[in-house]
Amino acid sequence: MPSDVSAASVRVAVSQLAISVGEPERNRAAAAAAVTEAAGRGAGIVVLPELTPSGYVFNSAAEARSLGETADGTTAADWTGLAAAHDIVIIGGFAELGDDGNLYNSAMLVDATGPRAVYRKAHLWDAEADFFIPGDAEPPVVDTRYGRIALMICYDVEFPEWVRLPALAGAELLAVPTNWPAERVPAAERPMVTVNVQAAAFANRMYVAAACRCADERGVAWVGGSIIAGPDGYPLAGPASVGGVAGDERTASTDLLIADCDLAQARNKATGPRNDVHADRRPELYRLRSELAGQG
Amino acid sequence: MPSDVSAASVRVAVSQLAISVGEPERNRAAAAAAVTEAAGRGAGIVVLPELTPSGYVFNSAAEARSLGETADGTTAADWTGLAAAHDIVIIGGFAELGDDGNLYNSAMLVDATGPRAVYRKAHLWDAEADFFIPGDAEPPVVDTRYGRIALMICYDVEFPEWVRLPALAGAELLAVPTNWPAERVPAAERPMVTVNVQAAAFANRMYVAAACRCADERGVAWVGGSIIAGPDGYPLAGPASVGGVAGDERTASTDLLIADCDLAQARNKATGPRNDVHADRRPELYRLRSELAGQG
Repeated sequence: MPSDVSAASVRVAVSQLAISVGEPERNRAAAAAAVTEAAGRGAGIVVLPELTPSGYVFNSAAEARSLGETADGTTAADWTGLAAAHDIVIIGGFAELGDDGNLYNSAMLVDATGPRAVYRKAHLWDAEADFFIPGDAEPPVVDTRYGRIALMICYDVEFPEWVRLPALAGAELLAVPTNWPAERVPAAERPMVTVNVQAAAFANRMYVAAACRCADERGVAWVGGSIIAGPDGYPLAGPASVGGVAGDERTASTDLLIADCDLAQARNKATGPRNDVHADRRPELYRLRSELAGQG
Repeated sequence: MPSDVSAASVRVAVSQLAISVGEPERNRAAAAAAVTEAAGRGAGIVVLPELTPSGYVFNSAAEARSLGETADGTTAADWTGLAAAHDIVIIGGFAELGDDGNLYNSAMLVDATGPRAVYRKAHLWDAEADFFIPGDAEPPVVDTRYGRIALMICYDVEFPEWVRLPALAGAELLAVPTNWPAERVPAAERPMVTVNVQAAAFANRMYVAAACRCADERGVAWVGGSIIAGPDGYPLAGPASVGGVAGDERTASTDLLIADCDLAQARNKATGPRNDVHADRRPELYRLRSELAGQG
């Protein structure tokens, strides 16, 4: 692989954003400001949190639905305008009102031409199942002018089998909009959700950029810890500020992570002269018991 | 789940050991000393590195074979004696001369009754393929007096699909003898091999105890970074001392990690009132593209 990083690199930005449930105009304005700042700093790719326009802590299914929008709705138009203005790619989450009438916890990838892909979260966390239908489709991998970008959402990335699919399909950067609720994080530690993102990058030698949120919402705090991990798993930017549960003095706050990434490096899965993290897999062995487990 | 940790816990020890290739008697003595020290400190389970009696950096296949022994050989007898003397469980790696005449990079779990299980490394690293035949059998899960213990070796644990198999089969503790070669580790970071062990624990809510080695061997240094991770992924002990490549001032050295583990905690895969890291898997979706990849 060529290692001329500077020539081939793209600047990736991750926005750890303050979001308020039920205030889509305010949230879209905050996202637009973050995207504009990132673009001004030279970013070609910007990752926003899960459910950016709607917020997360819904009081009811009716409230969640009232904040839903179609994949060609206001947010899509907004982000397409930003993408066109700055010639960038934006990945962010939104509450998707599907053609089938269902509400999904989705993310879209938008460039100057409009939405290029929509992904529906397949692994729902906690009360999300009261508001959303889980998706059944694999994470898309989108050829963009900056490289091949896949997307999945929050809890999805905690299933290494799910991460494998876009990685094996050639994703160079996995963008992960998240809303990680605050949890106990030992004082000297990174949140395990952040560590897990590093491991996802390491296992697949691909870049992973996870954008969490901040600003408490109806009593729920967020862990923050957004990160851009390189294909060796080490952070290129972040972890961003981390918030804790009661007793933890830390607070997640707004943050903008920036890292220059040579996405082509992620095409090389070699970890040594005779090893390759994908070629060394032995899927014929993995199927035995996992298939049985699938019947359970 | 009962949460009376003190009543149910077992003390787990991980020995980051100095090993010398081609000196099995010296290596067995070093391992015996570490096991005895661990038992004296109350350990019920002791994890030793990969290829403990033989060492790792072989000059030739003939040398590797000359250091091979059967699963009921000298090391098995040695460890059985130690297990019986201290009423403990020992997991460690050795070069196995199989009944089929092949040499395997194996690990065994031994208790007072003798070897309970032998596992043959399925994912070989670098020059290992010149010396060893890869195993084809899933990591065993052994019911011991202290809980259900699985074993795999070094590079194996970098394949999350492989880790899933014993986890789904009910492993409460995954013991991982390793020989992690030194690699570039940024000054403020843990080695990614260590971070990956944390993520393996986190993804499956099980304990993972990885024992690396130290003492340069024919120009090869070791990263160290042995760890005992709890089912939430955070370290209960370690990481042990970390060594680096040229330019890194750190050196991995002998270390003994100790942590009290309530292995029954690993039976509970719940991460919240409505989530469970195993029940939330969607294996029917994971098979689609991964099966195609398996044909490649």
